[in-house]
Order: sequence, then structure tokens, then C-alpha cells
Amino acid sequence: MRPQDIIERKRDGKALSDGEIQTFIDGVCDGTWADYQTSALIMAMFIRGLNTREQRSITRAMLDSGTIMDLSDIDAPKADKHSTGGVGDKTSLLIAPLAAACGIAVPMVSGRALGHTGGTLDKLESIPGYTVNLGFARLKRIIRACGFALAGQTAKIAPADRKLYALRDATATVPYVPLIVASIMSKKLAEGLDALVLDVKTGSGAFIASQKDSVGLADALCATGRSFGLKTRALITDMSQPLGEFVGNALEVYECLCILRGEGSETMRATVELSLELTAQMLVLCDRTLQLQDARRKVENALSSGEALERLRQNIDLQGGDAAICDKPASLLAKGIKHVPVRPASSGYLSAIDTTALGNAICEIGGGRTRAEDRVDHAVGYRCIHGVGDRVRRGDELGVLYCRTSRDAALIGETLQRAYKISDTIPTRPKLIKATV
Amino acid sequence: MRPQDIIERKRDGKALSDGEIQTFIDGVCDGTWADYQTSALIMAMFIRGLNTREQRSITRAMLDSGTIMDLSDIDAPKADKHSTGGVGDKTSLLIAPLAAACGIAVPMVSGRALGHTGGTLDKLESIPGYTVNLGFARLKRIIRACGFALAGQTAKIAPADRKLYALRDATATVPYVPLIVASIMSKKLAEGLDALVLDVKTGSGAFIASQKDSVGLADALCATGRSFGLKTRALITDMSQPLGEFVGNALEVYECLCILRGEGSETMRATVELSLELTAQMLVLCDRTLQLQDARRKVENALSSGEALERLRQNIDLQGGDAAICDKPASLLAKGIKHVPVRPASSGYLSAIDTTALGNAICEIGGGRTRAEDRVDHAVGYRCIHGVGDRVRRGDELGVLYCRTSRDAALIGETLQRAYKISDTIPTRPKLIKATV
Repeated sequence: MRPQDIIERKRDGKALSDGEIQTFIDGVCDGTWADYQTSALIMAMFIRGLNTREQRSITRAMLDSGTIMDLSDIDAPKADKHSTGGVGDKTSLLIAPLAAACGIAVPMVSGRALGHTGGTLDKLESIPGYTVNLGFARLKRIIRACGFALAGQTAKIAPADRKLYALRDATATVPYVPLIVASIMSKKLAEGLDALVLDVKTGSGAFIASQKDSVGLADALCATGRSFGLKTRALITDMSQPLGEFVGNALEVYECLCILRGEGSETMRATVELSLELTAQMLVLCDRTLQLQDARRKVENALSSGEALERLRQNIDLQGGDAAICDKPASLLAKGIKHVPVRPASSGYLSAIDTTALGNAICEIGGGRTRAEDRVDHAVGYRCIHGVGDRVRRGDELGVLYCRTSRDAALIGETLQRAYKISDTIPTRPKLIKATV
Repeated sequence: MRPQDIIERKRDGKALSDGEIQTFIDGVCDGTWADYQTSALIMAMFIRGLNTREQRSITRAMLDSGTIMDLSDIDAPKADKHSTGGVGDKTSLLIAPLAAACGIAVPMVSGRALGHTGGTLDKLESIPGYTVNLGFARLKRIIRACGFALAGQTAKIAPADRKLYALRDATATVPYVPLIVASIMSKKLAEGLDALVLDVKTGSGAFIASQKDSVGLADALCATGRSFGLKTRALITDMSQPLGEFVGNALEVYECLCILRGEGSETMRATVELSLELTAQMLVLCDRTLQLQDARRKVENALSSGEALERLRQNIDLQGGDAAICDKPASLLAKGIKHVPVRPASSGYLSAIDTTALGNAICEIGGGRTRAEDRVDHAVGYRCIHGVGDRVRRGDELGVLYCRTSRDAALIGETLQRAYKISDTIPTRPKLIKATV
């Protein structure tokens, strides 16, 4: 069957058969489909839609385009967490060691920063020497030794997704639920997991801003995971403001180390709370006899006892990094960085933050990537001081920009200030965890 | 404005501004739009639609992507004919010399065979030595000398169309009226014409099978032409069976020479009739004081007097071809070609012919192109003996396949036979000219 014939059927709104979807994904991988044919079909899928069967079929074909990790010889439940992405969302760096400390094996395959959202791999690479390029044998050795590994997507995991995502990013076809589901789940199913906890962000800094659409995405993700026999649960969580205190690669690792060392600030509280909750949910999924409150206590103990910090220390060492940063987190903070305060335009209550605008501004001065091939500056970022619901006065600091030059500060200073909405009436503080699916 | 932003707007069903369309076409030409972005936008245009203003805007941008021929120093009305393509449709080879003999300058820029439809350039290249690659200066010299030139599209004429058409062909987005109109009219407007006659085919061998849709296309073509100040008229003509006697490159040139020499067969009558009518319409468009019946007499006279044959003889010589074929048309017929009769599966009335299937079958044995880069075998083709409405018996010959090998005959013999529908009731013979727009 020629690409044109399959494209034509979806163009005309017909449902594609499993065989047609398989032909498409095979063609994407072996190059018999040209990129312009793939992007035409994706656009037709976006506009005409994919039904549940087609969505499952495309997930299956993308999963089958690569290998599935065989972790069967590791004698522990395997679980992972996936977030739909946000600003200041550094929970992976806490959840992996926390879960490992609670006896779970975590083969965490992560992504890179793109647009306003950060990426776990970039954050990790701000640790001197740390590598995320692990072969499968090494990844397994590391999991066996410390309970978790943090790695980049290899060419062997769902290669179809890599190609499709790059094309979707360039053709305005990213925000379509069935394609998002296929992209996320094909990669996560390839990790050979028993359980998966999803952190579906909602609000001004999330991919999907409305809570209704976020719940729709969470439902579709869970239904797909479960249809493949994977225990799946999703939390809908707040992304109407940056999570915790810091935004920026090295700064976020610094925040996590402070937390693991028991030195976290009040502003870091949301990072702690969300990480504890997601890890507890992971434990419950892996052991259905466990009550959530008991799981939560277990995770809290892994944090307060220092066991999670130890796990991270081992992991950094095993992945080639300088584990000494666990003892002096401040050594991660680069010298010669300017600290420029961001002040409110008027006095009043902080009623909303345009978190995407804030993330994009940090991206603009090198903290993230506009294109996949851009380099990231690990040292720059932002420190949040006030959050939604706080009362602020003109002279206060809403936050502090960490940048290289005064020119950078001038470039985005106004954007940052304007990202904060100030009102006269007292706003409701956003709830961190909004729903469980 | 990034390609993604423009794609997103059309994806969501919004009308694009003239500036956005200009940015798109500029990007296609200068390579800042990747092919996969172009094809995604085309698919969105296909499904979401383009309004009349957008259609005109895309035609304008495509026209402006190249140069417009300046024929102002040729002191004669400039006119051309364009057909939407069919099987056995060789009228260009008659209309150009007929119109030239009547005092019109014809700068005819034609295309190549693709799929089941033939192409004037391929037909011409079956004349030994004939070249269709003319620079503008040479094209003008030839028009001045003999009244017409037959040339291929140069890189300077609507280059955007060339790129867009190749992508549309590979992504199932060819059959959409506004894009068809922009493609045809951008090229024809670039010829610097006073008048244009369009032959919009309808029926089983046409691009658009239904008469209603053909009228819609004709309306859109004429409205667009007129909005650019071009005198435009369209005839809706029959393509429910091959036109005239022969299908195939050299065979069609042979048919035209027979006609110009006054040696045409009864089966060639439709070719003659359509060519006379289209040329007469062209004359009337160029001289509004002329009545159609007077124009028709003038054209008939150009044929019967031998003046049109003389014009073609001069043209062949000027374009590097062997003009001696005008005296011995049979010399065009290659030696060693097998003549294999196609017979009806049963006796009865010939009620319909699947003309696309017939054209595709000839294409399959080398008479046409499946892909733009395929080579064409000028010698192969098909001779039509019976047409729709004829009574046939089992032993009769419906037509004769001209092929290289018995293997080729075996390959498509059954397809050819099955292309003919035989019924017990007397069918109506299709009317050659169905409507004028």
C-alpha cells in the first residue's frame, strides 16, 4: 500500500486499520515514507482525529519499532514516573532515589528541555562528569547497585517516536491527545515496567492549560497503559506557577540536594510535597496491599533518614559524576552569575503567573532550548520568592533572575515583571494536587 | 512569522492573510520552509479549505514567484489553451498550428505525462530531434516565425508550483479545487496572455469524474483568470472514453498529422471536432466582434487549406525536429511493435469505458509515468476501434494494444478487456462538448 493511499483515507476522515498504521510506522522507521508524507498524515490525523483503537494501535506500532527493556532478572518491582512537563519541575531527581530507597527499581528514561519546559537530562548534566548516555548493560548494572538509573532515550527505544516528535514540533501538531499518548506511552512501555505514575500538569505553565483537557489526557494515558497490562495512575497537579524555589538546570539540582539534605526552604515545600506524593502512589501501585498513608510514611522516612541522599550519591558516582556535590550543594552554583531582582509593577495580591512566559524568558537567555540542536547554559535561571496568593508591595522582590550579563537582564526583565498579575482582591492559592485518575 | 504559526492557524480553520500566504510561498521558494512543513500546511488547506480571497492570493504569490513572459513586442493577440488532462487528448498539437494559421500568437507551455494522463511534451519528443527546452529568446523567435511555440515549463515560470505539485502528488492532496486553480492559473498567467481557453475534462478518464465538480472547477478557473484581467472561457468536455483513435505518444502525433493532412479516419472525428471548437473559442475571445460560427469557419479553413500543416512543419523545423514526418506520418510508427487485439468479454452494447484504468494500463507498459522521474516509451499505446454506444460481438476488436512484448500484452490484456462495460440495453452516446463556462 502506497503512502498516498493511507494518507488519502485519513484525509477523508476514515479510520485506519491496524495494518495501515503498522505500514505507516514501519515506513517512518525504514525511510520508505518521506518526512513530507509523514507530516501530511499527522496533520490529517490531527484534524480528522484518531479513535481509541487507532490510538492504541499507533502506540503498539511505535513501541514495537524498538526494543523493550528486559529487566526480569532484577528482583524488585519496576516503576517509573512521567511528567507532562513544566517550569521548575524537578521531582524526577527526588522520586528516583526516594523510590529506590523504598525497594523499587526505577529505570528512568528522560528527555531534554524544549521550549518553556525543562528536561531532566539537562539538569543532570549540570553535575560535573555526569553522563546520561548509558548502554543497556550499564543501565542495568547501575539499577542493581543503587536502585535507579537516569538515562536518555537510546536509538533502540521507540525510534518511531523520535522521528515523529521532531516532525510534529515543526508542523504545529504536538498538542493532540492521541499523539501525545502514543508518544509518552510507547517510550514508557519500552521500559518493561510493572507500574507507572503520571504527573499531568495543568495551568499556565503546562502543555495543556485547562484542567478539563488535562483530565482528558490523564484518562487517555491511563486507559492506554492499562490496556497494555501496565498499572497506571495519574495525578493532575498544579502548573499555574513554577514548582518550588528554583528554575534552571544547576539551580534545580541544587534545590533537590538541599531537600535531600533536610535543608530545604519553605519555598521548596511544593517540590517536596509533590515528590513524596508521587513516590507514595508508585509504592501503592507496586504493592496493592499497601495503604497510601503507609506508603507516604515509608517515603517520608526514606527522605528524613538520609537514605534517599545516599542512593543519589551512589548513582552520581556510578553515572560518572562528582558525588562530592552531595556534601556541598552550593558548589553547583556557578561564579560570576548576576542576581537581578524582579519587582512588582504595583502593590497588591499576586493573582496569577504566566508560567509559560516565565519559562520562555529563561529559555531565551540560554536556560532552555528553542530548537532541539540548541546548547543549554546550566548556570542561568530564576529564583521564585513569591507565589500566587501572596501580598506584595512595590519594593518587594518577586523573584531573582540568575543571568550572565546585564544585557540578558534587560532583554527579559520586563517580560518577567509582566508575567506576574497583581490584583486588589485576595486570590485563592492554587491547590498542588487537584485530582487522581 | 514561523512556519509553525502559519500552519497552526490553518490547522484550526482560520483564513490566512495575504501576508501569511506570501510568507509561505516565499519560504517554499527560498527553502526556509522544509518540505514537511509545506506538506503539513497543504494538508490543512485541503481539509480546512481556502476561501476565494485565499485562492486568489496563493495564485498571485505563485505567479510572482517567477517571471512573467513579456511578449508585448509581438504584434498579435496572445492566447493559449489548457486541458485538465485525459487519455488520448492530443488537441494541443492541432490547436497551436490552427490558431497560429488564424493570426494568433500561441506561447504554449505544456507538461509531461503523469499517471493515466498523457503530456504534450512527451508526445512532441516522439518526433526525432524535436526539443521542448527553449530559452525565452528562442521561444519568442519561433513564435514570430511560425505563430506558436511548444515548450516545457522553465525554472523561471512559477517555481513555487513545481515544488508544491511534487509534494501534493506524494501526499494525496492533488484533487482540491483551489490548489488546482492556483497551480494551473499561476503558470498560464505567467505566459503574458490576452486570452485563455480551458478544456475541463469530465468523466471516467478525467481528474474530476463528476460533471458538477468539473463545472465547479471551470467556474473557479474562469473567475480567477478574469480577476487577473485575462479573458478566460472554459468548455466542459467528455472524457468518458479516450479522445479520438490513438492513445500513446508517437501514435497521437501520427493521428494529428493524419488530420492536418486531411487523411483522418472516422474514429479521429472527435479529436478534430474538439480542436476546431476550442480554437474557434480562442479566436472569439481574442476578437469580441467575431461570431463563433464565423470563427469556426475560419479555423476549418485553416485546416482544409493545409495552412495549419504548414505552420506545424515550420515549427518542427524551428524546434529542431525532422519536419519530413509531415509528409510521411507513418514513419513515426516504430518497427517491431506487437499489435494485440482486445476483444469484448461478451456481446452487447458498449455502455462505459473505465478510461483511467485504460490509461493506467498503457502507463504500466511504459506509455506514461508512474513517477516524475520515469522514462517514457514513445512507441507503445492503444488504438481505439469501438466507443461508447457501439454494438459489439464477441469476436470483434474493441481496440488494439501496441506493445513491445507478449509479456506486456499478458500483463495488461485482462485489465483492458475489463475496462469495457458491455450491457444489453442501448446506451446514450456521450456528448463531446457538454457546457461552456
